[in-house]
Amino acid sequence: MANSKYVYFFGAGQTEGKKEMKSLLGGKGANLADMAEMGIPVPPGFTITTEVCDLYYKNNRSYPKEILEEIQKNLVKLEKTMEKKLGDPVDPLLVSVRSGAAASMPGMMDTILNLGLNDISVLGIAKKTNNERFAWDAYRRFIQMFGNVVMGVEHAVFEEALHNAKKTKGIEFDTELDANDLKKLVDTYKKLIKKEKGIEFPQEPKKQLQMAIDAVFGSWNNPRAISYRRLNDIKGLLGTAVNIQSMVFGNKGETSGTGVAFTRNPSTGEKKIYGEFLMNAQGEDVVAGIRTPQQIEQLAKVMPQCYKEFMDIAGRLENHYKDMQDMEFTIEEGKLFFLQTRNGKRTAAAAVKAAVDMVNEKLITKEEAIMRVQPSSLDQLLHPQLDPIAKKKAKIIAKGLPASPGAAVGEVVFTAEHAMAETEKGKKVILVRQETSPEDIEGMNAAKGILTARGGMTSHAAVVARGMGKCCVSGCGDIDVDEKSKQFRIKDLVVKEGEFITLDGSTGEVFLGKMPVVDPEMSGNFVTLMKWADEFRKLKVRTNADIPRDAEVAVKFGAEGIGLCRTEHMFFEGKRIKAVREMILASDLDGRKKALAKLLPYQKSDFTGLFRIMGERPVTIRLLDPPLHEFLPQEDKEIMELSKEMKVPVDKLKIKIAELHEFNPMLGHRGCRLGITFPEITEMQARAIFEAAIETGAKPEIMVPLVGHLKELQNQKEIIVRVAAEVMDKKKKKIDYKIGTMIEVPRGALVADQLAKEAEFFSFGTNDLTQMGCGFSRDDSARFLKQYVELGIYDKDPFQTLDKEGVGQLIKIAVEKGRSTRIDIKLGICGEHGGDPSSIEFCHIVGLSYVSCSPYRVPIARLAAAQAALKNK
Amino acid sequence: MANSKYVYFFGAGQTEGKKEMKSLLGGKGANLADMAEMGIPVPPGFTITTEVCDLYYKNNRSYPKEILEEIQKNLVKLEKTMEKKLGDPVDPLLVSVRSGAAASMPGMMDTILNLGLNDISVLGIAKKTNNERFAWDAYRRFIQMFGNVVMGVEHAVFEEALHNAKKTKGIEFDTELDANDLKKLVDTYKKLIKKEKGIEFPQEPKKQLQMAIDAVFGSWNNPRAISYRRLNDIKGLLGTAVNIQSMVFGNKGETSGTGVAFTRNPSTGEKKIYGEFLMNAQGEDVVAGIRTPQQIEQLAKVMPQCYKEFMDIAGRLENHYKDMQDMEFTIEEGKLFFLQTRNGKRTAAAAVKAAVDMVNEKLITKEEAIMRVQPSSLDQLLHPQLDPIAKKKAKIIAKGLPASPGAAVGEVVFTAEHAMAETEKGKKVILVRQETSPEDIEGMNAAKGILTARGGMTSHAAVVARGMGKCCVSGCGDIDVDEKSKQFRIKDLVVKEGEFITLDGSTGEVFLGKMPVVDPEMSGNFVTLMKWADEFRKLKVRTNADIPRDAEVAVKFGAEGIGLCRTEHMFFEGKRIKAVREMILASDLDGRKKALAKLLPYQKSDFTGLFRIMGERPVTIRLLDPPLHEFLPQEDKEIMELSKEMKVPVDKLKIKIAELHEFNPMLGHRGCRLGITFPEITEMQARAIFEAAIETGAKPEIMVPLVGHLKELQNQKEIIVRVAAEVMDKKKKKIDYKIGTMIEVPRGALVADQLAKEAEFFSFGTNDLTQMGCGFSRDDSARFLKQYVELGIYDKDPFQTLDKEGVGQLIKIAVEKGRSTRIDIKLGICGEHGGDPSSIEFCHIVGLSYVSCSPYRVPIARLAAAQAALKNK
Repeated sequence: MANSKYVYFFGAGQTEGKKEMKSLLGGKGANLADMAEMGIPVPPGFTITTEVCDLYYKNNRSYPKEILEEIQKNLVKLEKTMEKKLGDPVDPLLVSVRSGAAASMPGMMDTILNLGLNDISVLGIAKKTNNERFAWDAYRRFIQMFGNVVMGVEHAVFEEALHNAKKTKGIEFDTELDANDLKKLVDTYKKLIKKEKGIEFPQEPKKQLQMAIDAVFGSWNNPRAISYRRLNDIKGLLGTAVNIQSMVFGNKGETSGTGVAFTRNPSTGEKKIYGEFLMNAQGEDVVAGIRTPQQIEQLAKVMPQCYKEFMDIAGRLENHYKDMQDMEFTIEEGKLFFLQTRNGKRTAAAAVKAAVDMVNEKLITKEEAIMRVQPSSLDQLLHPQLDPIAKKKAKIIAKGLPASPGAAVGEVVFTAEHAMAETEKGKKVILVRQETSPEDIEGMNAAKGILTARGGMTSHAAVVARGMGKCCVSGCGDIDVDEKSKQFRIKDLVVKEGEFITLDGSTGEVFLGKMPVVDPEMSGNFVTLMKWADEFRKLKVRTNADIPRDAEVAVKFGAEGIGLCRTEHMFFEGKRIKAVREMILASDLDGRKKALAKLLPYQKSDFTGLFRIMGERPVTIRLLDPPLHEFLPQEDKEIMELSKEMKVPVDKLKIKIAELHEFNPMLGHRGCRLGITFPEITEMQARAIFEAAIETGAKPEIMVPLVGHLKELQNQKEIIVRVAAEVMDKKKKKIDYKIGTMIEVPRGALVADQLAKEAEFFSFGTNDLTQMGCGFSRDDSARFLKQYVELGIYDKDPFQTLDKEGVGQLIKIAVEKGRSTRIDIKLGICGEHGGDPSSIEFCHIVGLSYVSCSPYRVPIARLAAAQAALKNK
Repeated sequence: MANSKYVYFFGAGQTEGKKEMKSLLGGKGANLADMAEMGIPVPPGFTITTEVCDLYYKNNRSYPKEILEEIQKNLVKLEKTMEKKLGDPVDPLLVSVRSGAAASMPGMMDTILNLGLNDISVLGIAKKTNNERFAWDAYRRFIQMFGNVVMGVEHAVFEEALHNAKKTKGIEFDTELDANDLKKLVDTYKKLIKKEKGIEFPQEPKKQLQMAIDAVFGSWNNPRAISYRRLNDIKGLLGTAVNIQSMVFGNKGETSGTGVAFTRNPSTGEKKIYGEFLMNAQGEDVVAGIRTPQQIEQLAKVMPQCYKEFMDIAGRLENHYKDMQDMEFTIEEGKLFFLQTRNGKRTAAAAVKAAVDMVNEKLITKEEAIMRVQPSSLDQLLHPQLDPIAKKKAKIIAKGLPASPGAAVGEVVFTAEHAMAETEKGKKVILVRQETSPEDIEGMNAAKGILTARGGMTSHAAVVARGMGKCCVSGCGDIDVDEKSKQFRIKDLVVKEGEFITLDGSTGEVFLGKMPVVDPEMSGNFVTLMKWADEFRKLKVRTNADIPRDAEVAVKFGAEGIGLCRTEHMFFEGKRIKAVREMILASDLDGRKKALAKLLPYQKSDFTGLFRIMGERPVTIRLLDPPLHEFLPQEDKEIMELSKEMKVPVDKLKIKIAELHEFNPMLGHRGCRLGITFPEITEMQARAIFEAAIETGAKPEIMVPLVGHLKELQNQKEIIVRVAAEVMDKKKKKIDYKIGTMIEVPRGALVADQLAKEAEFFSFGTNDLTQMGCGFSRDDSARFLKQYVELGIYDKDPFQTLDKEGVGQLIKIAVEKGRSTRIDIKLGICGEHGGDPSSIEFCHIVGLSYVSCSPYRVPIARLAAAQAALKNK
């Protein structure tokens, strides 16, 4: 310990830290040191390291003596540098105290300004600045901040006193309070603190400082900070650093001012300084919105010298950090200070443009450009968005899950039929359902957006909507859907059929009324960045698409094949569903074969359509998967209709439906189990695939679902191979095809070495693998998974981000075992996780060949795959 | 090949085979060789090896020349030995041809007798034996057998001709046909063969022999034989052997005869020759039942010399094979021949008595005695059985799954309430349900037996019935239950409420009417054998028991603890269910706590009861597992009743029930997920356990169900540990307790190294582990699993016999990982598999500490565990 250094000075040519010391000094501290080192005017100060935070906790919330001494030494050094003393009655040093961990962390205590003021030094400041009001306002603000964040007095307590003061005087704005008013307010504040906490506001500046430092370290482990770290997966940090910095004031008169600026436009990415400032103001005034700030360009007129210096430094900072900077500055009596700089937050559009521009400017490499853009943010570029300004003013009436991104505005309808009817009339509608079922597909397609009361991120509504690239908010438990009375309810609010609502599928928010929507625009920069990403990624990116329209969208977005074509989605349309039902209701093999013969031409034309669009690209077709009861109606009215249509007595229908009922359909008679008990279904599907492939010259990959046992695969493969030979014989043409299997049953992963004897490829169905591996159904887990994530049992919803620790083990086992039998086995993933960046990185690491995701996530997957490759070089 | 020997001679001092050559000569061939070697009079012959069968198939159903030559050489040798020639017109050699693999296999071709007869040699035999009728009858029988099994003419074709012959003559029995009739019949038979098959019955004896040999080898791969091997898990055999043996005749007059005998009584195990014989008869006459055979003791009077020799040889055989023998013998003109001996099939009672007796006789060791008894057969000793003679005559009206063994007779009732009401009146009832639910428990308890139309071997009905030791036939798809009309239907048969039916839960058979039932009797031999088993087994045997009655039964059967006490079963009784429902319907924490406070004393008294019975033995208590909706009624009528009782509006109740509805309850809000979202439930249960344990001095083991993630276990453990401390503090008494977890979610097995940090024991819940690992629900899989087993996809129903290849891997992983963290972790199994002998062997091999099974399977588990230990020494 004796050799350690716990405090690092910065500024005035005495800087000790370096920007590489981020884990020790925190992001803010390292940046301040770095700026000071660059010769940028930074108010001097010092940083207490993150190690001290760690020791503070290990030491039962106290400090070893050496550390206190080191802080004291640095304070003296700062006093010398500034030629002022903390608590000096005539010309006191004032400091700010700020937290700053290695990662940005909104949950912690942020800032205390003006520390060092007390009943005496306030008078010195007043005299020194010749501005009594400034002095008392600074003191008032200090007590309020300190009282709140250090001493724990509710913010509202101070606000009420402030409000009363203004009311008494009959004024509206804080700025209308004069020195005397503020002096009184200071007195009131001090009394309030005493009353609330039973102790006096500390007058001794060193005590103020120590208490502020304690508060910063204490805030590291407050519940908000802990939960923020958990939610954002921030791990392995020692703690926060504390930055103590001499104060500069932008409100010392007309040659003082303060502002914030970005080196490029954070909305568009345009390479042009973008910022605002206010003369004679403190930082918080810019944010508070009481006075309207000026555009940064105006500074050139107001203080040309400062402006030139500012522009010069901003340029240096961007070049230095090689990224768009978000800067805070203050001008104190004509002198410019930089208080902070950091990489600026930006919209996806800005991120893409800035990244591409910077490569062109030779500021960064392509690799760096790729790493600069958050893959998931690309969604913004592909979907309509709510106008951000309108959104700020709008009232959220409910919040559900952000199931499928984009924005949608429309009249509320409650049934799929109604959605289709209204859309045909040219209306825009939002389909609101308790939950959707496969029979709603056409209605979902017609609607602009979908809102459901139940179901998670991978519920039927969510999955289908994402496939369609359609806005969807699912699992919105706040709403109470009453289809019969054609209305839904949110507590006391009733929304009726025909009323307008607006959905934000990117956030899960639901708004009442119509809101303006901004259409997406895909720029050339986007295309450029995607091209670069393609140069680096190792994973191929395919799409999950069942119909030509989806396939077309996906190809436009760069899909290199279809990783999952679900054949059953094709079964729900018009005449097909009739033939499907005939098959299900047939009492014997002959009846089933007759119905299947009717389905064959439909299936064949489906595949022909897909094959034509995909051309040379591989297309993986999954054989029938869902349990048969999904194709039968469940409600009396529909059963009656079906009875008439099919000329089957209602009673008989009901018996059949009851027979097919399953307690746990997820674990029931589905997947290859259907093809094994009804081999004629597999036969028909194989025939349709091969006939279509021969016509189009495609190379289909046929995938057997839900395989857990080698013999299941053998059984189905035998049928497929036989039908292939029959069709090729008949058509006198040979084609290449592959047979593979889903790995979605845990047992399948465990016996992958056996399966690979027969399977030429594996595709991981991570939805089911998660359901069975973790033992919770995606439809039912909403009830507890949300709480699980809140409690930190799972870091993230395992249906969104692959559970690497558990389900990931099954994937690793299957990859290893599969390769042990068949070295060149093709390995892909086609669950929802195929479009999730963190899951994609996992796929890259375990060495899969491709990921497959919904069409609108293809660009995200391409970028994420490139980032995974760069990160894991 | 030149060095190989393909044919082995036996008899007349020239025996070449040995009993150790069973895999080469088949069981029959090895035994014949062995008997011949012992000097027992066996008609000489030779055995063609199983290798020839293998070569026959490899050689495209033909034989290498050397083999044909070797057969010819042995035939010549046999002719020399017998001093007769095949096809000789004066004194022809006749032979039998029999199949015989290394394992007994009813699916194959069995026997051809009298081979060598033709139109000419039949005359020689007639003359030589001076018995024309005998000769023509032998010839007639030979053509019929040969025509059927070798040439493939339907058995019925010959039977019809025989029937016509008798009809024409106006007689009833075959024996009434004279030589002339038989001569005509031979002619008819030959014509029928020509008509049916287009070829003549072969007159050349060598051709007859070759065709018979081909037929035996051909039968090795007929569908029945293949399916028999699959069903009985017979693997790794080369094929069948063929035994060609000179014929001896028991029907050559009054000094000839034939019989079958056991060295001990196969029903009781009594050490006394048990058998029957008929003079002047062939083997099939004994079986056919036309003449009544005599008891073997009578032979002493009829042919004292033969009897003495027979008794002497029987004794030698038993001593030689050290097991009860099942023998066939023939006396030809005063000379005794043994045709076959094998270990005799026996009842469980006989098996136990014989095994124990033989140890006392110093014939075998204790280890051998233990291996002699089929564990699963012990069920017979513990449950009432149908009278076997009555059963032979009874008509089976339906067949379901043998869900819980024993027999039951009673009047049909359709509801649990009715079952209880009738039982109170002193009636015996059978509860017939579509499927049972937890609410039926009391009714199931009241009934003598349970019959359900749906649900597999591990359905609710099956599991609960086995726990109660009550007869149950489940998944009886033939019956169509109509509760409303109070009847069930099997095709055209209607069975009404109040009619008597009889169930055999050991076979799944359902009979109409009352049948006599034999009560079980546990003999001292049983107790002795169990004691020996306990000396050798390594696995402890515990029981699954929820209530004192079950625990008492299990302790009586030797249970060493409770491996699984399901706390929820206690919730369904009378007043408790009300409190449970109050808890579920409570809208807030306070409401739940109030309801839980009412449940606490019930739970406590449940545990006190169990702890008192179990004394020092460990008791593992599983916290609440099923989803809450299982405790609410689903039908309108019951909901109305509940509404009145609870004073909650029907609408509100329905909303709550709908809210709790789950698509896949198996993968829903259950297990520790309940305890995590409602920690107050865990608290109440922990409190009840600890208060009861302190009162009784028990050492409870608390088991957290459905854990998939370390943090789930930590969450629940924290509550349990806290409550334990609180209760011990309050009662001022310390007790030992353990906290562990179920391993039943695949993820749990995969992260077992982490779980073992917190868990002091694991208990494998192999029902759920199978459901989730294989991805099929036990309730729904009946629809396809039966076919799966028929198709050989799974060798056995994985809910009955552990799927070692798949689910077994998860267990192995969990055992290894668990021990890697906590070397002395206690490992058990509490799924249904804990009572299945083959699964128990697996548990022994992977090194579990104990198995836990339903009370009535405890003896089975004890014996199976001993056998596992002996087999895997």
